[in-house]
Amino acid sequence: MAAEAKTEIISVGNELLIGKVLNTNAQFLAKRSTTLGNTPARITVVADNVNEISNAIKEALRRKPRFIIITGGLGPTSDDKTLQGIAKALKRKLAVNTKALNMVKKKYEAYARTENVKTIELTPPRIKMATIPEKTKPIENPVGTAPALRATINETTIFALPGVPTEMEAIFEDTVAPLLGRASKGAAFSEKSIYVNGIMESTLAPLIDIVTQKNPEIYIKSHPKGEENRPNIEIHFSITTTNNDKSKERLQAAIDQLSQLITANNGEVFCP
Amino acid sequence: MAAEAKTEIISVGNELLIGKVLNTNAQFLAKRSTTLGNTPARITVVADNVNEISNAIKEALRRKPRFIIITGGLGPTSDDKTLQGIAKALKRKLAVNTKALNMVKKKYEAYARTENVKTIELTPPRIKMATIPEKTKPIENPVGTAPALRATINETTIFALPGVPTEMEAIFEDTVAPLLGRASKGAAFSEKSIYVNGIMESTLAPLIDIVTQKNPEIYIKSHPKGEENRPNIEIHFSITTTNNDKSKERLQAAIDQLSQLITANNGEVFCP
Repeated sequence: MAAEAKTEIISVGNELLIGKVLNTNAQFLAKRSTTLGNTPARITVVADNVNEISNAIKEALRRKPRFIIITGGLGPTSDDKTLQGIAKALKRKLAVNTKALNMVKKKYEAYARTENVKTIELTPPRIKMATIPEKTKPIENPVGTAPALRATINETTIFALPGVPTEMEAIFEDTVAPLLGRASKGAAFSEKSIYVNGIMESTLAPLIDIVTQKNPEIYIKSHPKGEENRPNIEIHFSITTTNNDKSKERLQAAIDQLSQLITANNGEVFCP
Repeated sequence: MAAEAKTEIISVGNELLIGKVLNTNAQFLAKRSTTLGNTPARITVVADNVNEISNAIKEALRRKPRFIIITGGLGPTSDDKTLQGIAKALKRKLAVNTKALNMVKKKYEAYARTENVKTIELTPPRIKMATIPEKTKPIENPVGTAPALRATINETTIFALPGVPTEMEAIFEDTVAPLLGRASKGAAFSEKSIYVNGIMESTLAPLIDIVTQKNPEIYIKSHPKGEENRPNIEIHFSITTTNNDKSKERLQAAIDQLSQLITANNGEVFCP
């Protein structure tokens, strides 16, 4: 889990806290950040509440991550409160941003054309999406309407992305991913799993310890799929390193070592 | 989101931070806690690391929730560090607990019988599952091997549940759910969604505000499924109250009010 550049994810949305929606956005960001050498150190889910959002951001900033990626709460309705939360956390005023307003304006001009109406008025809920904390930068949303946001505080870069998955993913790939890649200086994440039958997880434990001691850079984690007495265990090997080729060899060496120990203890190993 | 008894969820596991596993445990706990009148205030995901686990618990305790529900990290392997994390957060020593050890012992005696072996030795990784912080209570695991845990600190009850979903869910229903229900004094969560076409989310925003002002106890949240100019929006109405019957009437009144406003603005409303 030694990430070169520490990242935190903050998911905003009551729908996550009431269990209505599964947090697939956090999984997407976790997976992509990890692939880019920036395994997240923490994921925090908070409500659509200015104080909750602000507190989560302030707490994350105190841990001095290189990146904070926030999702959700950028839309036109009153329950979208992320911009207010960021403003409060950073002690910056909210103000209509000209660039952001142009982004929003262009969207509604395009919608007017497709709807065959002369104009769609820039009402307060539409202007709200362009009302961002001072000294932050709007990011064009290639899919939806609400601009995303980028802010810098000391060594931390904050990104606020929309909660709609297609919008969030597009902006992540366009704007966030290149920065994460550069920050980790090309560090990459390699992983491989083996599957084991016929050996209890508690019997496996000291064998994993032996291999971990020999290969301290490799994280080995067992995921029991069956029960202790009907074992069916996935063992996941992972490493974050700047030398991708060599890391695969190192993973394989650890896998071979553990496989031998498991076989010697009457377990069966399956490699996909 | 006015929960009678504030709950926090802490999910422990590198697999969540690398995006390997979707956090369905947190969704289950969020949904069930909400149904029982205890909408979680926060979900925190941390790594298999004693300091990270301890910090997340200490931070949650400072917010004085009624419950903290932790999942993951109770197993026999070295990467299972939740018991150490709790001990560190509560400044309590880890010690073999007789009740917990008996729980573990009984499991391995049963496994020995099904395996037709005389005995399965209580090795250190097996004893580790019964080595819990002092002044905490083990909870029988009806599905798996590792006992769960209950601890009390001032006004907060901490539950540590296994990460394997079937084990977590069984212990939640047996032991945690009744306590949550009692703590919220029978408060219940009611929700209903309507679906809307032909009206932009930004046009909907002021209409939702009108209905929210008339019904401040009801939380109304729009979930755009399409794009701003091809609107297809779910509007979710929810309320937490001790009077379940009346809450459904109040939800319906708000739904009727908003539906009328939407129709008057040329939108189409679909009720499932």
